[in-house]
Amino acid sequence: MPEFAHDEDVVLSSRARIARNIAGMPFVHVASEDQRREVIARLLPPLTGTTSAEPTIWTDLETAPKQRRRMLFEQHLISRQLADAKGPRGVAVAEDEAMSVMINEEDHVRMHAIAPGLQPGLCFERIRDFDVAIEPLVGWAFHERWGYQSACPTNTGTGIRFSAMLHLPALRMTRELEKVRQAAKDLHLAVRGYYGEGSESSGNFYQVSNQITLGCSEEELLDRFVNTIVPGIINYERSARQMLLRRDRIAIEDRIGRDLAVLRAARLLKVDEAMRRLSSVRLGCCLDIVKVIPLQQINNLFHEIQTGHLQTAADSHLSPIQSQEARAVLVRRRLGEG
Amino acid sequence: MPEFAHDEDVVLSSRARIARNIAGMPFVHVASEDQRREVIARLLPPLTGTTSAEPTIWTDLETAPKQRRRMLFEQHLISRQLADAKGPRGVAVAEDEAMSVMINEEDHVRMHAIAPGLQPGLCFERIRDFDVAIEPLVGWAFHERWGYQSACPTNTGTGIRFSAMLHLPALRMTRELEKVRQAAKDLHLAVRGYYGEGSESSGNFYQVSNQITLGCSEEELLDRFVNTIVPGIINYERSARQMLLRRDRIAIEDRIGRDLAVLRAARLLKVDEAMRRLSSVRLGCCLDIVKVIPLQQINNLFHEIQTGHLQTAADSHLSPIQSQEARAVLVRRRLGEG
Repeated sequence: MPEFAHDEDVVLSSRARIARNIAGMPFVHVASEDQRREVIARLLPPLTGTTSAEPTIWTDLETAPKQRRRMLFEQHLISRQLADAKGPRGVAVAEDEAMSVMINEEDHVRMHAIAPGLQPGLCFERIRDFDVAIEPLVGWAFHERWGYQSACPTNTGTGIRFSAMLHLPALRMTRELEKVRQAAKDLHLAVRGYYGEGSESSGNFYQVSNQITLGCSEEELLDRFVNTIVPGIINYERSARQMLLRRDRIAIEDRIGRDLAVLRAARLLKVDEAMRRLSSVRLGCCLDIVKVIPLQQINNLFHEIQTGHLQTAADSHLSPIQSQEARAVLVRRRLGEG
Repeated sequence: MPEFAHDEDVVLSSRARIARNIAGMPFVHVASEDQRREVIARLLPPLTGTTSAEPTIWTDLETAPKQRRRMLFEQHLISRQLADAKGPRGVAVAEDEAMSVMINEEDHVRMHAIAPGLQPGLCFERIRDFDVAIEPLVGWAFHERWGYQSACPTNTGTGIRFSAMLHLPALRMTRELEKVRQAAKDLHLAVRGYYGEGSESSGNFYQVSNQITLGCSEEELLDRFVNTIVPGIINYERSARQMLLRRDRIAIEDRIGRDLAVLRAARLLKVDEAMRRLSSVRLGCCLDIVKVIPLQQINNLFHEIQTGHLQTAADSHLSPIQSQEARAVLVRRRLGEG
């Protein structure tokens, strides 16, 4: 079996997120439009200034075209909620596109960082450094007993959330996913789909995150998440993969081989089908059944095949059929003609 | 578009069949076992003798192993009815396996010849020549007014039936097949599946044959079949193919490309799925979408992928999974790895 750094065979990516609100300003959901404009005005200098520790590229989402908002959402840099909202709001993105700061989403500020594989600690350090750098310039709402204030009670306290995007195709095949969901619930974890809250588990991806941020230090939360919770699920998925190989290798090879062949041959590809078949090919890479395609290339495709990305690449609006054609061309280019 | 001899783009093969009974012997369904043995005894010399015009290789189906019977059935050399029956019965097959004479099926004698494309006249000549050669040696039951006697009223008269195995994937896709069925009914034609009476239309193949043999000469029947009836259906299918290409070329290319890719990649293949996807690839050949695979190779595969053929090639009984594996290996070998 090939070796994967940071458990990338099961963990697509990790994220850490901090929710913060400006002291003395009302929460977003009760703020007037002017107050929300003031939130932006007060945050813009530290977010885009050259002295700041990071995020620099500002997008005003009130005026940004729909396609730009869609792109940012597909890259997991903004939430669907922020993309679709109205009024004063925006996002600052770091140059490597692995960190973003959303303004006027549920809280005044939500900072995210993302990293490949299981590295939420790395993400945490990145946003903490940024938080430490800008806190003196802004001043966060903080309560001595309850910690950082948040518009959402589950974020009050440290205001931090860790999450891991897990690829669980074998647990899906062996129909053991419900057990994982139940165990996650018992551990007070949230399980969401590829595009967060309310989204389907497209491509057999499941985003697992801690729900409670009150009453524990950030370090305790991180330690439990990285060393206990996620490894438990990783091992469960790995066992399921090995069991499938032992019990039914030819059926697995058949399935993965067909999915790769169809991706290479299709002239029209819908996004759901592409996600599903790419998920299968990703499993093939991890099991050494698909040998020539680097895992990173497949990971990138999960973004690249999204409609907003295709439209941006084509630099024009695409009809549904044109999107399917463009997606098939892209996938064939990335995976080879077969 | 590539050119196909004998309308092979739509007509897989043609057949002609004559039903005959020995004068003075009871029909099969009322004959005793001894009488059926006598039928065989009287026919064996002309069927296997060196002086005879054709069929030579005799298989006693009462004693032949199941696998041998299955092979003969899959090659369309015997009917399912004869394969599965009990008691004295058999078949004589010509060396090129394109002509067979069944003994003690519904009639004492049923002679078939088969040829690629639309050539029922060629088939007719072959069996007529054989019939003429053996009639003096046997003596057929013949009625001056009604013609040749048959156990089945629809075969009384000339006792001849012409049939064509038509490949109608485009009419299936455009959902116009019901119209063809209705038109065929109005013309007193029988429409059957790939394996004759009662069989499903596997692989979009439909066997069309005349039902009435009384009151017309063989020449009249043949002329109508070859010059009017079958060409009508052929043109209908060709129009549907051109219409699909004009209206939806990319969707057709997508579908055919996927089917070929899956056939080349699969590690396990069930016979129904193989028939369905090969049907699609055959259409691809005829439309010049699939370029490198000769049509003949695909035509042969429709036989070769049948379980009896696979077992004969493997020289052993195969479990269902082993059959699926062997079928996938064979198909990949014939169609290339992709």
